[in-house]
Amino acid sequence: MTTITGFETYDLRFPTSLHADGSDAMNKDGDHSAAYVQLLTDDSELTGSGFTFTIGRGNDICVQAIRDRVQPLIGRDVDDLAAHLGGIYRELASDSQLRWIGPDKGAEHLGMAAVMNAVWDLAAKRARKPLWRFVADMTSEEIVDAADLSYCSDELSDEDAVAMLRKLEPTRAERIAYLEEHGYPCYSTAAGWLGYSDDKMRRLIRKELDAGQDCVKLKVGLNVEDDIRRCGIAREMIGPEGKLMVDANQVWDVPTAIEWMRQLEQFHPYWIEEPTHPDDVLGHARIRKALGVKVATGEHGMNRILHKQMFQAEAYDFCQIDACRLASLNEVLAVQLMAAHRGVPVCPHGGGVGLCELIQHLAIIDFVVVSGDLTDRYAEYVDHLHEHMVTPCVLRDGAYVPPTDLGYTSDIKDQTLSDYSYPQGRYWAEQYPLDLAAVAEERATAQA
Amino acid sequence: MTTITGFETYDLRFPTSLHADGSDAMNKDGDHSAAYVQLLTDDSELTGSGFTFTIGRGNDICVQAIRDRVQPLIGRDVDDLAAHLGGIYRELASDSQLRWIGPDKGAEHLGMAAVMNAVWDLAAKRARKPLWRFVADMTSEEIVDAADLSYCSDELSDEDAVAMLRKLEPTRAERIAYLEEHGYPCYSTAAGWLGYSDDKMRRLIRKELDAGQDCVKLKVGLNVEDDIRRCGIAREMIGPEGKLMVDANQVWDVPTAIEWMRQLEQFHPYWIEEPTHPDDVLGHARIRKALGVKVATGEHGMNRILHKQMFQAEAYDFCQIDACRLASLNEVLAVQLMAAHRGVPVCPHGGGVGLCELIQHLAIIDFVVVSGDLTDRYAEYVDHLHEHMVTPCVLRDGAYVPPTDLGYTSDIKDQTLSDYSYPQGRYWAEQYPLDLAAVAEERATAQA
Repeated sequence: MTTITGFETYDLRFPTSLHADGSDAMNKDGDHSAAYVQLLTDDSELTGSGFTFTIGRGNDICVQAIRDRVQPLIGRDVDDLAAHLGGIYRELASDSQLRWIGPDKGAEHLGMAAVMNAVWDLAAKRARKPLWRFVADMTSEEIVDAADLSYCSDELSDEDAVAMLRKLEPTRAERIAYLEEHGYPCYSTAAGWLGYSDDKMRRLIRKELDAGQDCVKLKVGLNVEDDIRRCGIAREMIGPEGKLMVDANQVWDVPTAIEWMRQLEQFHPYWIEEPTHPDDVLGHARIRKALGVKVATGEHGMNRILHKQMFQAEAYDFCQIDACRLASLNEVLAVQLMAAHRGVPVCPHGGGVGLCELIQHLAIIDFVVVSGDLTDRYAEYVDHLHEHMVTPCVLRDGAYVPPTDLGYTSDIKDQTLSDYSYPQGRYWAEQYPLDLAAVAEERATAQA
Repeated sequence: MTTITGFETYDLRFPTSLHADGSDAMNKDGDHSAAYVQLLTDDSELTGSGFTFTIGRGNDICVQAIRDRVQPLIGRDVDDLAAHLGGIYRELASDSQLRWIGPDKGAEHLGMAAVMNAVWDLAAKRARKPLWRFVADMTSEEIVDAADLSYCSDELSDEDAVAMLRKLEPTRAERIAYLEEHGYPCYSTAAGWLGYSDDKMRRLIRKELDAGQDCVKLKVGLNVEDDIRRCGIAREMIGPEGKLMVDANQVWDVPTAIEWMRQLEQFHPYWIEEPTHPDDVLGHARIRKALGVKVATGEHGMNRILHKQMFQAEAYDFCQIDACRLASLNEVLAVQLMAAHRGVPVCPHGGGVGLCELIQHLAIIDFVVVSGDLTDRYAEYVDHLHEHMVTPCVLRDGAYVPPTDLGYTSDIKDQTLSDYSYPQGRYWAEQYPLDLAAVAEERATAQA
């Protein structure tokens, strides 16, 4: 028997705003950040790590949400948790006091994501398997029990979900063999950040093309002339067969989205991503109907109920799940199940800190276990901040290589934990020694 | 010139779970709480106070969200803020880093609500007016500029909103005079908490009837036999003319809501409140269409975009805005404007700590400025925790008396701040001396 004995949390922030990495029309100066939790056990070799991703300020709020949510795990038997991953999820989610400040959204939900990501990591490590294989070794019934389909019965019942998974169960091994040979297809956003010059964009697209990658995503939405010019450059470089995605990061209202995209249709974008506010199911449906361009959204899709309505309103063509915004694999599975039921491709959101390391598992699980389909499915890849991960993801010929490392590949390096903890880590203390003192004083006052 | 010089935050929690006050099918053991902020100025007589409401755990997360959101107000001129209440709202809301952990929802949004509630309180106090009168003295253009209609242009444009308000501008004084004579109608939830015995419920309904109040709301959703018995008692006591609301607090999925309510239709409920998850616009529309009972929801309606879709999908009959979940009066005005545009009555959510003190202003503003209509409009009232407010709301013959106190009547008593601050306040320290030491030690560890 191995028991969870405690936890550590970290407010990790990386100074990405210095070089406009990750910049877009909504988010000009994000410092990519992780609210990170380690579950400690009485086996010194076994920890579970999980995080949620933010872009700077507010990361502290998510750390507090983690600390509130994680408490009931202390003293629990790891094997018992691993055998009842739906049960522990429901237990944590049933805290009605924490639920009040959501429900199922915002900081409390991001904290839930981090904590349950750590539980899945712990369970897979304990089983000595990568997470995707841990799930591929579960029965259809176990997977549906773990999936949070609450409030979704009007779209998909547990029984129908089990029946759907059972059909694919006998052929899981074939799909694993396929992925081990070919990898899981991805597309790259590294070249397209809005703060980059045309020259820097050209250089990065060239690098992608040389690496066998002709799916490119550009950020748009600040200035339509700039967007026309940048889309023209990218389309010319990748050729008519290459896939050009565009991403507005929620800056438009519904009428603006329609009007603006009519001017970019000439570049035949593969999709328009986040054309408006992520909560606006009916708005996305209206945009999709008005345009000849497919609609993708979901990285800010707060929960399964939002996605359920996206399916019911036929509001998007691509469902972009987020590993840290949905409440871990439990809720991801629910969305993947509903997507497969509707035949909507799931294209997970990557980038940030460690998101690529997580979504490689989600993409593999989708293909091997849930949908059995690769059509129109591309996981996002950004070549960014992987140096902080203990087991960074590996790409080959524009595809994710199925990881063989144990767990959810969510461990962040010890050196990073000490350097980038905010505000006391080495990096931040060197940059802002005076600010640090002020923050310390402010915190002390708050405690008093 | 008067300047904001700093702020104080308080994590206030009240032990309401001891007597099941506020208990319902979802929330069995809430400790009603306020994440409270005071804006301090260089005029020692002038402070602005605001809060968001929670039910216990998680209140600390909201306090942290307030601390992150409030920073840009330090050093600002109060008169300048008061003259540009839309501008300061947009400036605070434009923090893209904090936005990431929403957007417009969860703890960061609740923190925004508390901070901007305090700004409105400060502005009205500075003008030496109650908040409702401060708004009634604004022009239609000023009110629409303050309203956050972003992402709502496909439902209501600023121009149409101004035109709507202008029609009512010449008759505002008449409606104020009406309210000063008759008050704003309300209904009571005090008798209906799910944890109360039948006897206690009877006693409380009798008290309401004696006070001239025959609108009663009961919590339902745990057990259908209990609900049938309790609804029968209440209907018998209030008679066929009385209004019986029932409230399921989100415990049902869509099919269950329809099935359960078919068994309560015999008691002719005036509305079913929160029949399912608050994010489920399309689910509410389906329930509404299936039943002969009107649908009310909104106390967990996270933002204007959710409400916009509720209107567009014709998903509810009553829009129950919350003064602390929507991001203060700025976002409340947007929802009230869209509701008036559609002719949907707004019935604000009361109860908790101080919510009644806030919503009396919102209800008055709706009638005087926005809708000009009292048809089917009832503000909620709960006789609960008012003793902690410096200027508690006043009821006469089942109606809110328009407050004459300055500001948003949001000030909490100094004694309450020292007694109920969690965990170090007098009350909590006496109840849980050992827990308090543990919490202090845990916090110290977290800081290290």
